[in-house]
Amino acid sequence: MKQLQDRIRAEGRVLPGNIIKVDGFLNHRVDTALMRDMAKEFKSLFDLTGLTAVLTVEASGIALATICAEEFGVPMVFAKKAKSDNIEGGLYKSDIYSYTYKKKFTLIVASQWLNSSDKVFVVDDFLANGEALRGLVEIVEEAGAELLGIGVAIEKGFQPGGQRLRDAGVHLESLAIIERADENGVVFREE
Amino acid sequence: MKQLQDRIRAEGRVLPGNIIKVDGFLNHRVDTALMRDMAKEFKSLFDLTGLTAVLTVEASGIALATICAEEFGVPMVFAKKAKSDNIEGGLYKSDIYSYTYKKKFTLIVASQWLNSSDKVFVVDDFLANGEALRGLVEIVEEAGAELLGIGVAIEKGFQPGGQRLRDAGVHLESLAIIERADENGVVFREE
Repeated sequence: MKQLQDRIRAEGRVLPGNIIKVDGFLNHRVDTALMRDMAKEFKSLFDLTGLTAVLTVEASGIALATICAEEFGVPMVFAKKAKSDNIEGGLYKSDIYSYTYKKKFTLIVASQWLNSSDKVFVVDDFLANGEALRGLVEIVEEAGAELLGIGVAIEKGFQPGGQRLRDAGVHLESLAIIERADENGVVFREE
Repeated sequence: MKQLQDRIRAEGRVLPGNIIKVDGFLNHRVDTALMRDMAKEFKSLFDLTGLTAVLTVEASGIALATICAEEFGVPMVFAKKAKSDNIEGGLYKSDIYSYTYKKKFTLIVASQWLNSSDKVFVVDDFLANGEALRGLVEIVEEAGAELLGIGVAIEKGFQPGGQRLRDAGVHLESLAIIERADENGVVFREE
């Protein structure tokens, strides 16, 4: 998506350790008009017939997922990140490892908000190692729901998460795939 | 706001300890059409002339703040909750105590995303003891920005946060103020 690539080029900052900071428009200060355009782009890229819910994970996926859910006319559900102990019943859960925070989390979704009649579109702002998305896919499976696809804003193409999901047969679309990011700038995968 | 009160009456559950569960439409599964109506209601209740940003705190405030920001045509900024140690520079911060999690957090906002030329509308989904909102107001003050008002979805009128903010001269509007919640149901403050 050219508009997103242009924003990353103009406003993104590359930090040591392959960190791409886009906190001016995506995940700290959020440009909601850009979110709306991304939601429309997802609409054109996926067959969302019968969709019943948009699923994401707190916190930085929520803004994009909210606009997507409104655009598609379905509720938005966000998984919560819990410490692995002391989790009550009536929940779907999936253990993931966060490379950002260097610790384990359990993603949880109350089982009353997803079931086997649901058709789910999963959304997140970033995809690198893919742990959060793997967890969300597990929760969709646990619910017996159908996964219609995964929409991501920015994928780090040089990390393995995206490839793993595509190899598993998931319909995944990332609106900008970064192949390389260093002091010379950002190079995107050809669309 | 009658629509919100009706939803709380129809779908909310009162749990021991004055906990009001509205996770079917507000803070776990989110009804984005309701968020849109709430944003429009805030627009009618506040003078938002010159508004430059909507500010909230992760995670459950983000959905409502996103729709508000789009409705008002400004960016949405969400404060992050950090553990109190190991916080880098270039940040506004405010220490708060979370009664929900029974621990201290530091709210942080990167200083580049708020400054003295900003006019800010603060949004949150819930107001009880008001610690999160007190922290957000402190961050607005730290930035030297102007606070145009605070919009809240549900206020627990029997807890002291709302009264404290109003006594401090803040223009605060809560779309549903719960006076009492027990096994007999929910009683709202007269509008």
